[in-house]
Formats: sequence, structure tokens, C-alpha cells
Amino acid sequence: MLSPADNDLLTRTGPDTPMGRYFRRFWQPVALSRELPEPDGPPLRVKVMGEALLAFRDSTGSVGLIDPRCPHRGADLYYGRNEHASIRCIYHGWRFDRRGRALELPNVPPESHYHQTLRIDAWPVQEAGGIVWAYLGPPDRKPARLPQLDFTCVPDSQRFVTKKLQQCNWAQSIEGAIDTSHFSFLHMPAPSVPSNKNDDAPADEKRLRWIREDPLPQFSFVDHPVGFVVGGSRAADADERYWRIAQFALPSHSTTPSTLPGETAFGYTWVPIDDHQCWIYTYAWNPDRPLTADERAKFARGHGVIAEVDDHFVPIRNRDNDYLIDRRAQRDATFTGVRGVAEQDALVHDSQGLIANRSRDHLSPTDAAIVRFRRLMLSQARALAEAGREPEAPRLADAYRLRSGSWFAAPDVPFDRVMIERFGDRAGLVTQTPTDTT
Amino acid sequence: MLSPADNDLLTRTGPDTPMGRYFRRFWQPVALSRELPEPDGPPLRVKVMGEALLAFRDSTGSVGLIDPRCPHRGADLYYGRNEHASIRCIYHGWRFDRRGRALELPNVPPESHYHQTLRIDAWPVQEAGGIVWAYLGPPDRKPARLPQLDFTCVPDSQRFVTKKLQQCNWAQSIEGAIDTSHFSFLHMPAPSVPSNKNDDAPADEKRLRWIREDPLPQFSFVDHPVGFVVGGSRAADADERYWRIAQFALPSHSTTPSTLPGETAFGYTWVPIDDHQCWIYTYAWNPDRPLTADERAKFARGHGVIAEVDDHFVPIRNRDNDYLIDRRAQRDATFTGVRGVAEQDALVHDSQGLIANRSRDHLSPTDAAIVRFRRLMLSQARALAEAGREPEAPRLADAYRLRSGSWFAAPDVPFDRVMIERFGDRAGLVTQTPTDTT
Amino acid sequence: MLSPADNDLLTRTGPDTPMGRYFRRFWQPVALSRELPEPDGPPLRVKVMGEALLAFRDSTGSVGLIDPRCPHRGADLYYGRNEHASIRCIYHGWRFDRRGRALELPNVPPESHYHQTLRIDAWPVQEAGGIVWAYLGPPDRKPARLPQLDFTCVPDSQRFVTKKLQQCNWAQSIEGAIDTSHFSFLHMPAPSVPSNKNDDAPADEKRLRWIREDPLPQFSFVDHPVGFVVGGSRAADADERYWRIAQFALPSHSTTPSTLPGETAFGYTWVPIDDHQCWIYTYAWNPDRPLTADERAKFARGHGVIAEVDDHFVPIRNRDNDYLIDRRAQRDATFTGVRGVAEQDALVHDSQGLIANRSRDHLSPTDAAIVRFRRLMLSQARALAEAGREPEAPRLADAYRLRSGSWFAAPDVPFDRVMIERFGDRAGLVTQTPTDTT
Repeated sequence: MLSPADNDLLTRTGPDTPMGRYFRRFWQPVALSRELPEPDGPPLRVKVMGEALLAFRDSTGSVGLIDPRCPHRGADLYYGRNEHASIRCIYHGWRFDRRGRALELPNVPPESHYHQTLRIDAWPVQEAGGIVWAYLGPPDRKPARLPQLDFTCVPDSQRFVTKKLQQCNWAQSIEGAIDTSHFSFLHMPAPSVPSNKNDDAPADEKRLRWIREDPLPQFSFVDHPVGFVVGGSRAADADERYWRIAQFALPSHSTTPSTLPGETAFGYTWVPIDDHQCWIYTYAWNPDRPLTADERAKFARGHGVIAEVDDHFVPIRNRDNDYLIDRRAQRDATFTGVRGVAEQDALVHDSQGLIANRSRDHLSPTDAAIVRFRRLMLSQARALAEAGREPEAPRLADAYRLRSGSWFAAPDVPFDRVMIERFGDRAGLVTQTPTDTT
Repeated sequence: MLSPADNDLLTRTGPDTPMGRYFRRFWQPVALSRELPEPDGPPLRVKVMGEALLAFRDSTGSVGLIDPRCPHRGADLYYGRNEHASIRCIYHGWRFDRRGRALELPNVPPESHYHQTLRIDAWPVQEAGGIVWAYLGPPDRKPARLPQLDFTCVPDSQRFVTKKLQQCNWAQSIEGAIDTSHFSFLHMPAPSVPSNKNDDAPADEKRLRWIREDPLPQFSFVDHPVGFVVGGSRAADADERYWRIAQFALPSHSTTPSTLPGETAFGYTWVPIDDHQCWIYTYAWNPDRPLTADERAKFARGHGVIAEVDDHFVPIRNRDNDYLIDRRAQRDATFTGVRGVAEQDALVHDSQGLIANRSRDHLSPTDAAIVRFRRLMLSQARALAEAGREPEAPRLADAYRLRSGSWFAAPDVPFDRVMIERFGDRAGLVTQTPTDTT
Repeated sequence: MLSPADNDLLTRTGPDTPMGRYFRRFWQPVALSRELPEPDGPPLRVKVMGEALLAFRDSTGSVGLIDPRCPHRGADLYYGRNEHASIRCIYHGWRFDRRGRALELPNVPPESHYHQTLRIDAWPVQEAGGIVWAYLGPPDRKPARLPQLDFTCVPDSQRFVTKKLQQCNWAQSIEGAIDTSHFSFLHMPAPSVPSNKNDDAPADEKRLRWIREDPLPQFSFVDHPVGFVVGGSRAADADERYWRIAQFALPSHSTTPSTLPGETAFGYTWVPIDDHQCWIYTYAWNPDRPLTADERAKFARGHGVIAEVDDHFVPIRNRDNDYLIDRRAQRDATFTGVRGVAEQDALVHDSQGLIANRSRDHLSPTDAAIVRFRRLMLSQARALAEAGREPEAPRLADAYRLRSGSWFAAPDVPFDRVMIERFGDRAGLVTQTPTDTT
């Protein structure tokens, strides 16, 4: 439970908010690289944390991110011409490069100081992992390197990246991702569907049964320099515990808990569009091998945590159509009657309201990750806003190469031991890999 | 004419308004019974006086009306599973019965006090006359019995019940119903259409002619414990007066003035959705005989005061399409060019604005019922809000069995005599009936 | 650059604003005459400077402009019956003529003073040039005559009049019209399209080349009693200057700069709907000859400054569909990738925002007309609001018969000489014409 003031502090990321200033200390996704497929192609409108910006891939292939307003009389550079390593305003031909410099002001007399002094706001951009990342904070605080999220460290062939629109505030959606206790319900079959009790059942069915039969997982944590890893263990067969382990990395990254060794991993990065909607950049990657064509096709159609989306990355099943809920299917087939893990998550996060009101929560011990997330985010944002203490995470690029997934262990094995068994590191950090190019 | 402050007081029924508190002393319709057709069927979103609620018919066939927000982390119980005489949240399986009690909190440890203490808001519900009624006020003020409106006292076979969306404030729509003087215009043929002057014309045509030819009816009133009855008399043939008598019952019921003995009667109950729209529950009933299949079919398609609606009870001809007004028909056939008495009423009420501004009114003696309605409502709401005086009407269930309709009388017969001649009671109350089960 | 306060003062024309009061000293277009094609036809909803009004052509053929609210209980007279030289309310048959007088109040007793005293607001209306003009200011300030804009002074056969919706504030759209420097960019071919350098090229192609090759026209002004005329000269062939001359007349008229003698002229009048959208009345006229059927057909389909519009005068290519911008066409064919001069203008004006924020402008000497426009408008509105000084322009009806267009002159000929050469008058005023009927 948060006070209304803390609820605001946690959720709002506009330019003049404490959390907004905190987020702006980090590199953040602003587009998929494939949304800007070619040099001199159409510019792209981008809205991040309440700010309307313009992205374009210039003649050199580099991406720029600029204020879309021409400083002359405010025409929208979105309609501009992307040419000669610049955006040219269609009103009077003013040209600005991706660093914001005025290259040409044709209707300004040659003697005007505008030619030297005029600039538009422009932000640093890098591309990695199929994503365009931007830094929207004060220039002197810019981290040199992007967070080395594991999916960005593998070759393109081993990775699938997309995004999906979430029609609510970012924070409640992250809370859903790190609360792995909800798997015992939201993503389950309808109660009338029997579990497969056969011990020879495939791994997926056994996992499903264990999750389904233990709605009260035990949670443990390992804190690390850029966030924390949370493990939830449930009773499995043969007197073992089935561990499901998820990562949270500052300010808004998470990886999922189902992956067994060798399986493809999944993760998310949330980026607020404004306080009432966000993009969820969603990635699948296999650290060990290229993804197959079948896997790519499956992901492209929507699969698991990857939503089925339209050409604008809007989920087909969304708030406006009640997620095409099928009440008969809800009774006889699935817990929700809504198709897709991604869509079930989206539904329940949206349903908490445009901004969840945490002042009326009644939390349980299974919400331990959520409590930890709220405390961490509030303390980080407050440290910057009130004490002027700069966050360390943005500079710890290598600390972001984190993995998560599932494991089995005897009941008395503590969480940090489980982490070492599963990942070779108590925080899940990949410390040494041939493909790490940083 | 009302002051702007009184206009607000009259029209606004949100939870913290004087009129809202007054309305919440009464049982009110919140749904048609047939919107919840079966036990364990899909729940129904309900909005009443600005509050978003959730109705569901549980496994026992009883209807519950609850706060749709799961107290855990605020997921919307609308998406929940209706099963085991409860709504189960799809997020973590919390279950609540129709009285708001927590039946199961699967991810809460057994020792938690939540199991005993946690509740959601739930309101008392009864069904009668094909309608789900709820009481939304303080528990200790709950009237034991529903208002015994006449249509609820006849067998199902003698009744047809539906509802229609009205896209404006409730109060101006009631004013239209009790202002029977507008029949001389709004529902008439175009002036170019001649009246049938033949004395052997059918009753309907003669009534039409009398209404049309006397735009200045004389109004009289009888007050009764739950409202008032208004009679408007016009010159008829053979030196008689043609009386049209309508009921108003607190806080928002009305019955119509056209019924002659033996004919089917009609009535309405208005329920604010919010300050800018309301449901009008509309009913036809015949105290003497079952409705025929033809009558039911006619009512289902829209007829007279029953609007032609879509599957969501939204009128086909509505504010958004200018009621499909046909200007040629307006010139040559009907006064408005809009089809349907219900639609003509809806149009003119909507046209007064989302909330009619009564501070600019210029009333006439023919608006006497409107003046009486405003005064009564304002004094009732003020008595409760300012003097803490509880209204009596909610407890006078039997005083609601009121009838209205048409009659003929010599010019010198006073209104209360007319009432006794027509209804056997000066207020129109049915005092003794074999089917009264209360 | 304007202060935020001056930006507001310039742009806002609601009833209680200084600029709104200034505008209300002038006759202004409120509809096209053909929107009210016949006596006793359907009334027309009209919104002007934030006020919702009702226009109707009465039985005599005269147009009325009234408050649409019936004074009885506020029903909307839009649904009323247009008959007997009046609008009759459909609720209770009250009738008002186009001067606002109550002609009939059928449900009001004969002895009521309402019959003598009741009025609705009504505004003076005149028709000229295919346009319905209204005066919305204080009665004692009403100018006797309409502004004698040149297009209104020619016979119907020589004129084509229409309107188009502009989805932004009126003022930035006018600024675009009097800023003729933007022709060097916005309306040009894509840079990759070569100009025709042939000296024998047709006039249109030569003009295009001169405009395209000189992005820095030199601007000169002649002030006149109702505004100013602005001339921009560019280098042409044979050591001549190519002059493009546009008119601005108070409060919101402009004529275009391309016309050579004998060609058809074009002009605009902007009328705010509210602060975020306006109508642009657009006219083509030829002072010398009737327009041909081909010209009319071309204009009706959209041509040049005349937009392609739907039945409601909404441009087909508009803000809501990004003007159907074609990025391939933008690269290879035209500067914008948007079809139509009118649409290119609309796009760039809209793109400045619903209300352009002039506090961030960086103006250039080529914006001289814009500076002059802002200064003139602000000083006029301030003079009225602060010093109570009534504007003179509304009474100078004959001073509005202004022409504009193109001309050629040796480099040393000053602007007022150019004006006399081209128009016979240094302000472009037509002082003596056989068709002037004023």
C-alpha cells in the first residue's frame, strides 16, 4: 500500500517529475530499428515520457532524435524532407542535422547570426539489439555505454525483438511481470480442466501442474547493483522445489522465469509514452543457438509473452475490445477466456486502471517482489530529487547482462545457492562470454 | 426558473451531492433481470449515479451488486470467473460472494487475518417486475420492501419491461413526461395534415384532435404521500372536458396520461448513469389481461413511448445521428420529422443540453407540474441534507401502486372527483387487489 | 516573437476577449448562401468565434441568424419547423421571426406579458457574393454596408465561392497567406526535379523558376486605411524583378499574389469557428469576364488554393489522415508529397499547433508581413479594449475593393510605383468601375 503521494511519485515520468528525472538518467528504447528501415526514409513520430519527439535515419544511416518543432515559426518537422544528412522543413527549407545544428536557412540573410547560433534540441542515440536507444537527460550525466542486456549481446540470428502497446501506466505492468505468483491463476486452464498427473508428462505439462497446485510460492531475493532477482519456489514432484526466477533491472527491465537451460529466454523493457500508456519492448533470445525460422514465424504472429499486434504494434486483443474475452472459453477452457499469455497480462494490468491506485491495496507475502520494486524505485527517485544523489546503475553497463529462468533443487537449498547452480552467479550475471563485445 | 445553484442541486446525483444522497434512500433499478439471464453467466458492468459497479447472477440464481475492484491490487472483477456462488478474480484467484465476503484468498497464508476481515462493498439487491433493484444507501436506512409500482404487482404475462438510454440529465427528461401540454405539438401531425372532424372517428383520432386543438390545458393536482398526480383537461366534444392524468412518484417514477379503462398502461423510472445520461426503464402493463404476442412483438420493435433500441438499449434514432430527422416528413407529415413518440421525447430532452440550464427559463401556467416537481425534489433533498430529515416515501411501499390515464367529465367536475370516477381513489392508488402479494 | 500574453490576445476571439470584441465590429461570413438554398428549408447550425448560432432562410427568402435556444425551457430550435417566416419550436410551438420577435406562444395565456416582451437574440444578416454575412457586435456600432471586397462587386457569372475547414487557429493561417516567401519551398517541385531553363517556357514555368531560385525575396509595404499591401520581389530574367503582391484587409481578408493581368484572382476570408479551428471562405473571380464551365468544374473539384472538400467542406486531405502524404512523391516529385496548394498550406498551418506558440519564433526579414500583421492586429484590438477607440475600417466599405497579383519591373522601381503600374493605385484600390453597385 502506498500513500496517494507516493503513488504519484512512483508512476509519473513527465519532464518535471522526480521519477521522470530519474528515468532520464538512463538510456532508453525509443523505437525499433526496423521502424526506421532506410537512410533518408520517412521520419517517425516518437512520444516518450510525455514528450513528442521526432526520429529519423539520416543519409549516413545514423538515427537522430530531435525536437519536431522548426524554430522559425514552429512548423512540424515530421512533414519535413529527410535528405542530405538532415531534416529540411517544408515551410521555408530550414535544415537541421541529427545533432540539432542548422545546416541551411535559405530565407535568412547571409549576415544573420542565426546561421551560427540556431540549434534545435537533439538527443544522443545508439542502436543495439534491434532497438534505437536514446538518452534524454542532462548531457554531462550521459552514460558512455548502453546497458549490456543479455539479448543485445548475442548475434542477430539468436534474437527476436518487437514491441507492444500497453494501455496503462508502466509501473503496474512491471509489477505484474515480477509477481510470478499470478501464474498459478491468470495463465492457467479453467479449473474444470484436469491436470496431467502422469509423471512421464512432458516438462511443460509438469511445470504447469506444479504452478497450478501451489498458489503460495515462497519468495527469496538477491539484490544486485542494478536491481534484484526474485525466486519463487513451489512444491514439485519427488520432494523437490520448482524454482521460477525473474530479474528486475533499473529502471524498467525484466526477464521471465520459465526458461530451463537451453530454452529460449524472454524479457521486457517498459518505456512510458505518457502516464497512461507505455511501450513494452519484448525480446526473445537464445544464448546458445540461432532462432529457427519456425520460431521467428511463431513470434511474429504472437506467442506467449509476445502479443499478437497490428502494423502499429497495437495488440489485436486490447482494452477497446475487452480483449475479445470469450465467456464460454472462460468457463470450459482457460482461466480468463482470453487468448495469449501476453494478452492475459495486458488485460489484468489495464484493468487496474489507467494508473493503479495503490492506496487501497491489500498485499500478501506473495507480493514481496512488488514491495521491493516500489521501495527501490521510490528511494532511487527520492535520492536524486531530494539529496541530489546520482544513481549508479546507469554507469554499470556490464551489470545488466542478467539471466533468469527455472530450476529444481532440494527443499533446503537457499536461493543464492540455487542461483549459482543455475546461472553460475548468485545474481544471474553473465560474467564471461565470447560474444560480449563491450 | 431556478438559480444556477438550485439547478445543480436538482440535477446532480453523484455520491457526495445532496440529491445523490436523497436518491440513495430509495431502491432503484440497476439492470433488467434478463441482462443477467442465467446463474454463473457473464457479469454485467453497471453505472449508477456516477458509480461503476458490477452485477452478477451467482450459482444460486441470486443477483449480487459489488464494487468491481479486487481489494488485493485492484484488478477488475468484471473479467472474473462467476462460479461457486462468487466472483473469482482472474489475477490471483481471490473469491467474493454477493454479500462481499471473501470466500477464498489462495495466495494469502492461512494465518493471515485477511481471511476473516477482508470484504468488498456489496449492496442489497431484489428482483421484481423483470428488474434488478438495488439499495445504495446507508444500511440502517434500507427500506424493507420495494415500491409496489403497479406494473410489478401484475403477473409476468401482463407486463412488458425494457429500458432505453437517454443522453442527457435525468431531471429534464422527467419534466418532459409530467408536462403533458407538449402533446399538443411535439407528437402531432404536421399542421398541413387535417384533423378528422368526423364525430364517428375512432377514439384515438378524437383524442388526437382534442389534444391538437387545445394547446392550453388547465392543470390541477392532487398531492399524495409519495408525489403527486397531475390532471390536464382540454375541451372535448359534447361540452365535455377531456382529462389526461399523469403520476409522479419520488424520486423518479412516472406513468403516462393516455390510457382509457381497459387499455394497456405505460410508465417510466429514470435512473441516472451519471449527470449527463440516464437509463429510462420503460414498462407496459395491462391490469386486466395478459399482453398478446402481437403486443409484445410490437413493443420489442419500439412503439409509442417504447423506443426502438439496439442490443445495448441505445435508441436507433439518437443524439449522435440527429434522430434521423427527415425534413421533408417534418414539412408534410409530422411535427418533428422524427419517427416515434419515444424518439421525439428523447430528441427534445437531449436538445435542452446535457444538463438543462433552468436559470434562463420562461415558464407558463402550463408548466405547473414542472414547478411542482422542482419544488418537491429540492425541498426533499434539502430536508435530508440540511435538517437531517429522512424522507418518508422510501418506507411507503404500498403508496406506490398508482395508476393514471384519461377520462371525460363535465366542465364543472373538480379534479379529485374526476380521480375518484376514473380510479376509485383521489390519488389513483390501487388499495385492494387479489394479486398484491406484499 | 510574441509574449505568451500577446499570443493569446492575437489569437483568441471568444465573446469576452479583446480580439473577439474587435472582430465583432465587422460584418463576417457565417455561411455560404447555397448552404441555405431555399425558403423554409432546413435550418443550419453555425458556430462563429465560439458561439453556437442558428441560421435559416425564412418564407420570404431572407436569412435569419438567431440564438438556437428556445426561451421557454431551452429546447434547440435547430429541430424546429421553418415556416410562416419564423422558426417554430417543436416542443410547444413557440414561434420567432428572424429578428427574434415572438410571433406565437400557443401555451401561454393571452393575458401574459410574454406576448409583448419575449425575444430571442437575433443578429443582422446580409447576403453578397454568394455569402451570408452577419454582424455580431453592439447594435449601435453596426456598419451600414458590407466591405466591398472586389469579388462581391462582380456579377455572379464572374465568381466562384466556397469554403474549407482549417483545423487550427485562424491567425497562423493568415500569416501563411501573407508570407509569400514560403512559395520558394512549400509549393515547389522536389529539388531533384529540374527547372525549365528555356526562355521560351510558358509564363507559369518561368514564374515557378524565379520563385524557386530566389528564396530571399525583398519585401515592401504600402499601408492603407483597411490594412496593407505587401510586395515581394525576386530576380527574374532579363534583369527584371518579379513582384508578387498580396493584400491584407482587416480583420481577416487576404488576396493572393500570383495573378497576372487578365488572369483569375483568388482571395480568402478567415472566420474563427472557435480558437482551434476556422472556416476559410475562398473565392475566385475574374474582373474581366465570366468564368468558364471548365473553370467552375475545376474549382469545384479542388484546384490551387481551393481545397478538395467533402459535402461538409472538410478537406479530403486533412489533419486526421496526415494529408495523405506520399513519401515517395515527396522524394521524387514535390517538396511536400502532399497534393494541392491548398492542402500544402493547410498542412503547414495545422502543423504549427492548434494555436501556434509565437513566443518561440525566430523570425527573419522575410517575415516582415507577419510582423506587420501582428502589430496591426494587436494595436487595433488594444485600442478598442484599452482606450475604447472604435476601429475605422468597418465603416470604410469602399476601401475594401482591393486587388493584388504579379508584375515585372526594373530593379530600381519602388513598390508604390509598381503598384500604380500594375493596379492604377498605390494601394491596389479599384476606385472606379461600372459594376460597382454600392
